Amino acid sequence: MEKTLGLHIIADLYGVDFEKLDHVEDIKALLEGAVKYANLSKLSSHFHQFNPHGATGVILLEESHISIHTWPEHGYAAIDVYTCGGKEKTFKAMEYIIKMLKPKRVDEKIAERGVVPVNPEGVNIEKWELTATA
Amino acid sequence: MEKTLGLHIIADLYGVDFEKLDHVEDIKALLEGAVKYANLSKLSSHFHQFNPHGATGVILLEESHISIHTWPEHGYAAIDVYTCGGKEKTFKAMEYIIKMLKPKRVDEKIAERGVVPVNPEGVNIEKWELTATA
Repeated sequence: MEKTLGLHIIADLYGVDFEKLDHVEDIKALLEGAVKYANLSKLSSHFHQFNPHGATGVILLEESHISIHTWPEHGYAAIDVYTCGGKEKTFKAMEYIIKMLKPKRVDEKIAERGVVPVNPEGVNIEKWELTATA
Repeated sequence: MEKTLGLHIIADLYGVDFEKLDHVEDIKALLEGAVKYANLSKLSSHFHQFNPHGATGVILLEESHISIHTWPEHGYAAIDVYTCGGKEKTFKAMEYIIKMLKPKRVDEKIAERGVVPVNPEGVNIEKWELTATA
């Protein structure tokens, strides 16, 4: 048996208002809002203002990370929400960001990340017992 | 005409030695090494040690970011290299990380991110001139 460790939503947002993407304080508030809305657990957050335009930032989570990079001159933002804390939280965080930025178009890709055996030690006791009695 | 703003390589590394993934100092050195090797420009770097196992971290770049999340108990690491500084740098950074971690298997996805008009103001002067003389 296998399980998937994480879910990663990669979204390209087009047609966003310049003003929503240009200022690092707004970008920080956006990501912090998404973390709260989705009930994720923040470890730390880091942001940077570019000149003349745009901002970049990441919030490290107990559950992985959320990142953003903006090009206001293109009305474009690149968003990643990657969590190992349940699929619902991943979708909720992205839903919040999209709701706030109001893009005209969203290109979204979803990747399941880290497909590993349920028992990483590699010995499935039940299976061995069945084999022994066959 | 259009251009692509960034290239994002998403890699899941399996079969990595436990010891290579467990300590945040090693994970930090790994990502810092990749940034230098690929000649990327670091803005800031942020790392966290999990207990009992694993680490998480990100380096914010002038060109976007590199992130890592590790599950040493599964021999697994999730790596993202996302840059808008030329495709060569993106591949070089990932090449360095894979070379250092020596995974038995790599699942890689590549996403082109941010396809925007070359002239975001929307007026292509050359095209208008050609139309006028037709």
